[in-house]
Amino acid sequence: MNPPIIYQSLYDTLLELVVYLIFLRYFLVFLHSCGELRSDHVGEKVTLCGWVQYLRQELFVILRDFSGMTQVVIPQKESAWHLKSTLCDLTVESVIKVTGTVRCRPEGQENKLMPTGEIEILAESVEVYNLCQKLPFEIKDFVKKSEALRMQYRYLDLRSSQMQRNLRLRSQVVMKMREFLCNMHGFVDIETPTLFKRTPGGAKEFVVPSREPGRFYCLPQSPQQFKQLLMVAGIDRYFQIARCYRDEGSKPDRQPEFTQVDIEMSFVEQTGIMSLVEGLLQHSWPAELGPIHLPFNTMTFEEAMRDYGVDKPDTRFAMKLIDLSDIFMSTDVPFLRSALSQPGGYVQAICVPSGLRRRKFEDIQDFMSLRQRTLLGHLRLQSAELLECCGVSVRDPSVFHFLWVVDFPLFLTSEHEPENLESAHHPFTAPLPEDTHLLYTEPQKVRGQHYDLVLNGCEVGGGSIRIHKASEQRYVLKNILKEDPTLLTHLLEALDSGAPPHGGIALGLDRLLSIMVASQSIRDVIAFPKSFRGHDLMSSAPDLISEEELKSYHISVIWPME
Amino acid sequence: MNPPIIYQSLYDTLLELVVYLIFLRYFLVFLHSCGELRSDHVGEKVTLCGWVQYLRQELFVILRDFSGMTQVVIPQKESAWHLKSTLCDLTVESVIKVTGTVRCRPEGQENKLMPTGEIEILAESVEVYNLCQKLPFEIKDFVKKSEALRMQYRYLDLRSSQMQRNLRLRSQVVMKMREFLCNMHGFVDIETPTLFKRTPGGAKEFVVPSREPGRFYCLPQSPQQFKQLLMVAGIDRYFQIARCYRDEGSKPDRQPEFTQVDIEMSFVEQTGIMSLVEGLLQHSWPAELGPIHLPFNTMTFEEAMRDYGVDKPDTRFAMKLIDLSDIFMSTDVPFLRSALSQPGGYVQAICVPSGLRRRKFEDIQDFMSLRQRTLLGHLRLQSAELLECCGVSVRDPSVFHFLWVVDFPLFLTSEHEPENLESAHHPFTAPLPEDTHLLYTEPQKVRGQHYDLVLNGCEVGGGSIRIHKASEQRYVLKNILKEDPTLLTHLLEALDSGAPPHGGIALGLDRLLSIMVASQSIRDVIAFPKSFRGHDLMSSAPDLISEEELKSYHISVIWPME
Repeated sequence: MNPPIIYQSLYDTLLELVVYLIFLRYFLVFLHSCGELRSDHVGEKVTLCGWVQYLRQELFVILRDFSGMTQVVIPQKESAWHLKSTLCDLTVESVIKVTGTVRCRPEGQENKLMPTGEIEILAESVEVYNLCQKLPFEIKDFVKKSEALRMQYRYLDLRSSQMQRNLRLRSQVVMKMREFLCNMHGFVDIETPTLFKRTPGGAKEFVVPSREPGRFYCLPQSPQQFKQLLMVAGIDRYFQIARCYRDEGSKPDRQPEFTQVDIEMSFVEQTGIMSLVEGLLQHSWPAELGPIHLPFNTMTFEEAMRDYGVDKPDTRFAMKLIDLSDIFMSTDVPFLRSALSQPGGYVQAICVPSGLRRRKFEDIQDFMSLRQRTLLGHLRLQSAELLECCGVSVRDPSVFHFLWVVDFPLFLTSEHEPENLESAHHPFTAPLPEDTHLLYTEPQKVRGQHYDLVLNGCEVGGGSIRIHKASEQRYVLKNILKEDPTLLTHLLEALDSGAPPHGGIALGLDRLLSIMVASQSIRDVIAFPKSFRGHDLMSSAPDLISEEELKSYHISVIWPME
Repeated sequence: MNPPIIYQSLYDTLLELVVYLIFLRYFLVFLHSCGELRSDHVGEKVTLCGWVQYLRQELFVILRDFSGMTQVVIPQKESAWHLKSTLCDLTVESVIKVTGTVRCRPEGQENKLMPTGEIEILAESVEVYNLCQKLPFEIKDFVKKSEALRMQYRYLDLRSSQMQRNLRLRSQVVMKMREFLCNMHGFVDIETPTLFKRTPGGAKEFVVPSREPGRFYCLPQSPQQFKQLLMVAGIDRYFQIARCYRDEGSKPDRQPEFTQVDIEMSFVEQTGIMSLVEGLLQHSWPAELGPIHLPFNTMTFEEAMRDYGVDKPDTRFAMKLIDLSDIFMSTDVPFLRSALSQPGGYVQAICVPSGLRRRKFEDIQDFMSLRQRTLLGHLRLQSAELLECCGVSVRDPSVFHFLWVVDFPLFLTSEHEPENLESAHHPFTAPLPEDTHLLYTEPQKVRGQHYDLVLNGCEVGGGSIRIHKASEQRYVLKNILKEDPTLLTHLLEALDSGAPPHGGIALGLDRLLSIMVASQSIRDVIAFPKSFRGHDLMSSAPDLISEEELKSYHISVIWPME
């Protein structure tokens, strides 16, 4: 079919252009990544930049970047002696730019395991950007390194394909979350300060001296106060990927700084936040992990404790706690009788499938000094681990069980002062409407509008509907928690200036990501994590600072006595 | 036209559904925002949540949220006395939920200035969420408040339409930037630590005591070292909306914490970064500000100083510096002769258009103690301001002039020790290739691969191609800057382990946004900024902390002598 006459000249021009482009393809040099060349590219002149993965018998250089590897052929002909000697003198992990022509590998030498395994590049020129001098360990996925060495040379550790994948996946998941919140649901991304004031009971907050004698900022554990103030400020939907700080010394697998997906909404109820978060996770969930199903299951705190002995049950397997109190009601066994005769006493058991060897059970006996439900919760998890060690399949590592736990008690008896109550989560959580009257009579019985999100037995998020009336907030702080409300004057004043009902949630991004990539440690999804002891082993932070430098902050070090 | 037979039943069902939905519309209650109702909605039952903007004559309540305002009619009939008294007892800025029916305003009472001015809501029920108790100032755009009052009651200040717009625009611009970098250009969003180690010459870094005696973290001024380490780690394209910290005491319009769009790429040259940033700004530029044109103009540092007397010229107006040295070569005027007789001496002038009153010129004479080009640069800007005060149009406030300034000197003479050189920007900037040899002979003549982005005379970004060879970096640190390279051992080791050529840029997000919204201060685009003196006037941070609480950090306060 001929094109209409009127377009003939345009058609001719385009045709010429296409012919020209096809012709040009064999003269132009294209910059490619190391993972993308295929047999389609044979005959093209290409340029690759990357790291030398290894050299083979003065014949090949294997070049690597984030996308994969390509085999580069070292020319053997006499006239290319200079190029050959440059390539042969390379060290592993040196950075080069190589230009050459794509060709098919000789028959029988294709590598089916390598995406670029059909082709190779015959080198024509090379530029050595950086000759790698020395390496504390090899950048090979199969080479095991100690955790300390990985941390000290983190810039090398991050070259591994696993860490490349983790960091890139994290970036993509967060981007999807932002699209969902910002573009699809009208949330406003707002940055809140990290140089703030000490919060009541903020024993885990880092302090930052200012240039005014005796005055300190604190690094907050979360943007909790700011997000509530933003609701009072009429920002109806707030979110932030927020950096948070917690000084917990050497608690294992905690980081002094960590990241949470921080969300707050006005004019919302508990179910509204919960379905928002379900949509958020479904939208940002990596396709390669398979779909997740909505809505997530919900369980009350009471049910979780009764059936699983823990407030964050791993629901991937059963082995629930079973109450045997009725059966043993008329038993003669002394320790069972004793247990049942106590107020609130009970007898519970878990049924562990066969497969555990007898010796393994002995490891468990350490627990036996406790006498409470959480003991059985621990026992249940440890049994699962032991069974898996023995080769019994208990938890499918490819499934993701999300679960909401709700109806937590609002207050708990203080561990250190049992006559006092303390907040189960934080002092801003609103009571369940039907329990509000108990605040003034039996506060220990009040359930809060708090919800925890649990994934495969790990807490990955928690939130609540907040108190939005100053009088109620003041009563909780002063009369129930016995805290000084003047430290929160700004928040109480704000609640008196037209505060909408509001609530929100914070998701632990590091933990969520580590479960997605099936890593034991959140350090595997953080680019530059601190060690167990809070050290940066690469730069050796924290570090000594001279007394002179501390003078402008009006502080001096108290050195401990020998 | 009849639908095909085969679809008849589907068609009937759909038709029924549509009729049902139209019917339902008059029975269902829809939740709307306060800015969206129009005459199309007349007859619908709706629910609005918002703040009481004002009450008028016991007849109307004007309800506001982020999206606008709606007039609510207070029913006057006897049977609605309870609803009427609840509405009439409301205070301004109280938060309510009101349900009622949309109706046309009576003829002649429409408000053309109000997007919802055609309609009103006849209230049928109300829920008072929060009765506003007291207000330090009215939430009206025309009510001027002092800066201190705005900061102390920031949660009220943010309710203004201007601050609502600023924060929402900021969120949208950042989202567009992320889409451009992450989705369109394969950048990886990576969070870097803020608890780090003191950097050489880091006098402006906040210190954070750890629980180990004498050991401190520092809050970094930028992720500079981390982004370079990420390039060494094989993350070829990194970006982060990064929180940065700088302790500058009371320098005006600086914030102790601020945000930069932080970008770094491997295997890139200066022009690559520059065109990336141009595309980034074009993509994220708010449509209502009109398009920006690419490529941006480029000027060398030498040209900027020669023609504008400043390294960040405002090119929205001319009034360039003119060299008159030749004309005055044979002058008899003593101070001109004296100037020209000095080595490198010159005579320059600017031509100020008529319009300045004579008295205004007297204000300028304070400058006259300086003798240098920057004097004329200052004079040029001050003349423009004075002209504008006198009603002469000099700079069009609606235009945005982007400009790249390039070819900066790599080193400057140290202000405090004139025999030493210091980095013009930072010690990691690479020299221009053609100047590299001068590093070893005449370092003061070396130009750097540094580029500043200037918008309407403000620096909004700066970046460089970095040194990627350890030997060169060590030479610069040790031999030219006389700094101790052991503080940067980790970076130097990294450059020896296969570092690709790389470069990047950081854009000052707060400043960029403040220019977009035509605000004088970056405090107008930050949700909770600090005051000039670095105070949070709302929560009164920084605050006193007891010696007891400081003990776990092994520090004590040195109180100044009276």
